[in-house]
Order: sequence, then structure tokens, then C-alpha cells
Amino acid sequence: MSPELRIVGIAGMPEVTPGDDLAALILDAADRQGIEIATGDVLVVTQKVVSKAEGRLVRLDSITPSEFACRVAADTGKDARHVEVVLGESRRIVRMDRGVLITETRHGFVCANAGVDASNTGAPGLLALLPEDPDGSAENLRRAVEERTGARVAVVMSDTFGRPWREGTDQVAIGLAGLLPLKDYSGQKDAYGYELRVTQVAVADELAGAAELVMGKLERIPVAVVKGYVFEAGVATAGDLIRDREKDLFR
Amino acid sequence: MSPELRIVGIAGMPEVTPGDDLAALILDAADRQGIEIATGDVLVVTQKVVSKAEGRLVRLDSITPSEFACRVAADTGKDARHVEVVLGESRRIVRMDRGVLITETRHGFVCANAGVDASNTGAPGLLALLPEDPDGSAENLRRAVEERTGARVAVVMSDTFGRPWREGTDQVAIGLAGLLPLKDYSGQKDAYGYELRVTQVAVADELAGAAELVMGKLERIPVAVVKGYVFEAGVATAGDLIRDREKDLFR
Repeated sequence: MSPELRIVGIAGMPEVTPGDDLAALILDAADRQGIEIATGDVLVVTQKVVSKAEGRLVRLDSITPSEFACRVAADTGKDARHVEVVLGESRRIVRMDRGVLITETRHGFVCANAGVDASNTGAPGLLALLPEDPDGSAENLRRAVEERTGARVAVVMSDTFGRPWREGTDQVAIGLAGLLPLKDYSGQKDAYGYELRVTQVAVADELAGAAELVMGKLERIPVAVVKGYVFEAGVATAGDLIRDREKDLFR
Repeated sequence: MSPELRIVGIAGMPEVTPGDDLAALILDAADRQGIEIATGDVLVVTQKVVSKAEGRLVRLDSITPSEFACRVAADTGKDARHVEVVLGESRRIVRMDRGVLITETRHGFVCANAGVDASNTGAPGLLALLPEDPDGSAENLRRAVEERTGARVAVVMSDTFGRPWREGTDQVAIGLAGLLPLKDYSGQKDAYGYELRVTQVAVADELAGAAELVMGKLERIPVAVVKGYVFEAGVATAGDLIRDREKDLFR
């Protein structure tokens, strides 16, 4: 039997603002579109709407940049106040060159500008930060969906990351609830008895990337439902997707 | 209207061997499974079956390793003959440390072991190399599918790559036909008039990753059909996904 999955983008969500009940907005929009949320579904939610609902927004004009931020800004062509916010969200600078500022966020994610972003925030001069506790945010959403619908879903919070060596961005999972992010093949053999070299597949990142195919960046579809993907349930953290610094050749 | 896509894995493919007509094997299996291939579909095909059909296989016991390969093997715990084959497929070593050998392939891809892999090759002691010309292979497949079915599809050849900073592998596109790999948002504005910071999304990599969700590594499903994804048609090369060395901070 050929396996099949469906990915449905949830259109028609209203603008999300601080304090909003995100689960309610998602379920209402799904309902209006005739999309049923069922046990076994994976809900992929972009970080931006979670950050907005949680009020993780900073006004540029409220920021006074440090001397260091001003110097970095001059070197990179960025707004010094934006750099100041990025530094505030970082615990370490990984690379700083050619206008690019790659840092390790307080959660441990390595990405451009500590995930601080001015697009789709709702107003000019407004920056969105990553959620304080993305796994916690995902779990809140998972639980709220279960309470309202009875459906046991998994939640993947996605964000847009660049990567070394390759052009274009992909989506990764920065917060999780209800599913294990890595599919583990350790010790398993292929059809010919050869023990697999690849032992862990980052299925949560693949789900995040797959969802973007229906979301796009301009269509105001911040949530997608993946149906038919058989995930491994468990206590989830997107932290499992972060390579330890000691094992990383590129930090 | 909520956008939706379907991803169907094509099960029931026979073992692929050198000289096989891959398009025929895929279409026959699809047919047996009742999967229609239609214009607008994206066919995602794993590199391994293409390499096997093209005879890009090397027997380990046919290889005499160089002195350098032996030294690298001793340092990394690998088979010296395997290292020899990896070096032969590489044009540059990017990082060589802690048992990991990351090289730039002759095509320009940066990945572990130049994409040379012993899993799912069909026999012990057999290594699969990347196709010589992955875009050409994808185009051959695209054309053969069109000739037999009349369907104008796009083809993405996928491979398993690791990445810095994150655990687990993801899929990337190493060969393409019929679709542009990067969705370009340059100069476009979000719903609030803010010009997007992210300008290029690697949709071909997202398609490759999405397809793996139905393929897995052990299920012998080397091909998936993505239905409902509106791609941008054009002259395609996976080379567009490779960042120029001069712009890359991690080479």
C-alpha cells in the first residue's frame, strides 16, 4: 500500500495580536474552511504568530543601542537598534562577516539575527523575537486544541533559517509538542542487511519545510495541518535538534 | 480557499539495477498502486535509485587505497577503500575532524563523504556514487515520463544531507528538471508593506524533505509524487542551490 499524506494550509486567520487565544483563532479558521482537526494530525505553526500572540514584540524606537551595536551596525549596514535587540537575544556570536550576523540564541539555536525579524510583525518599526520557551508554547497550543476538540495532535513550531553552503532558506522546528523530532534508525538494517549509516532523520524539520509549501511568505497562512504522517509520540523538545557544541565542526 | 497538497509514496518498485529504465519502473509501480501521474505533479526521486539505474556503483574490493586515504581512514575509523572512493568524488575537503569527512563534490555540493554511501545499494561491499550529471538524469526522467504519459511533471532528485548546528539529516535537491528551485521574493512586501528580509526560499529542498515523510529509509519507497504544489516552471539546475564559495562563511 502506498503511503500518503495531505498538507492543508489554514487560510482566513485574522491578524494575531498580543494576548490573543491562538488555539481559538486557528480552530475557528479551520472550521470556517471546513478543515477537521483530528487525532494523529500534526499542526505546524509559524513562530511569528506565536510570538505575536505572546507579545514578543519590541518597538525599534524604544531601543537605545550600545556602542558595540552601533559599530556592528555600521559594519553590517543594519539598524543599530535592530542589532541591539539581536545581541540581547543572543548568548554567543558564531559568525559576523559580510553583513551577516549569525548568533546562538538563548535557546541554543544557531541562526541569522537570533531569529529577530521585522517582517509580518503587524506594523513598521516592530520587531518579533522568538518565543521565550518555544516547546512550552507548542505544548500550550497542543493542550488547548485537545481540550476544545478532543483531538490528540502534535505541534511543530516552525521558523525560517538559512544554512551554510546552500542558497535559499528552509524551515526548521524550534518548538515541539507531542512528537519526537528525530526518527532513529540506529542499529537498523536496510533491505540488504547493511546497517544504516544515517541513523537519525530530522522529521520535525521535514514537517516544518513541508508545511511551508502550502504557507508561502505572503499568503497569510501561518498554520498548516499535516494528515497521514505517523509520528512517534513522546516527550518532545526541539532542543534535541540542536547539535552539542562539542560535536559541532562549524561553531 | 485553503491550499492543499498531497504526497503519495510509490510503493512496490522492484530492485533497480544498472541499465534499468527507471521511468518505466516508476510508472508501472504507480499504475499498479492506482496512482495517476498528471501535469503539475512533482516527482521526487531519491538519488540512490538513479545511481543504481545508471550503474554508478563501485565494488569496495576493486579499490586500492592511496597512502593518504589509508591515513584518513585510520584517523576517522573508516574503510580506507571507501575513503579512496570519497576522495575520488571530491574536489576539495571542507572539514576533516572527529571521524567526519565533509567534502565538496565535483558538482559543488558540500556534504559528508561526497555523497558516497553503502546503504541500500543492493549488495554488501557495494558503494553508490552520486550521478555524474544529476540535472541531466532528472531531465531524462522528466522527458521519459512526458513521452509515456503526456503529463508535464517536474522532477526533484533528493539526497540525504546532514547540516551544521542541527542533529539529524534532512533531504536536499541535488538534481532538477522542470521547476525553479528557489522561490524569489526580492522586492516583495508583506501584508503590512514591509519589504521581506528573506528573499529566496529553497522550495526544491522543501519538496525533497516533504517527500521523505512518506518514503522513510527502510520502506523501499524511493519515489513520491507531490500533487497540488504550484511550482514555477523553468530551466532548472540544482546548482542554483549551491552558495558561491566567495559568499559562504563556512567553507
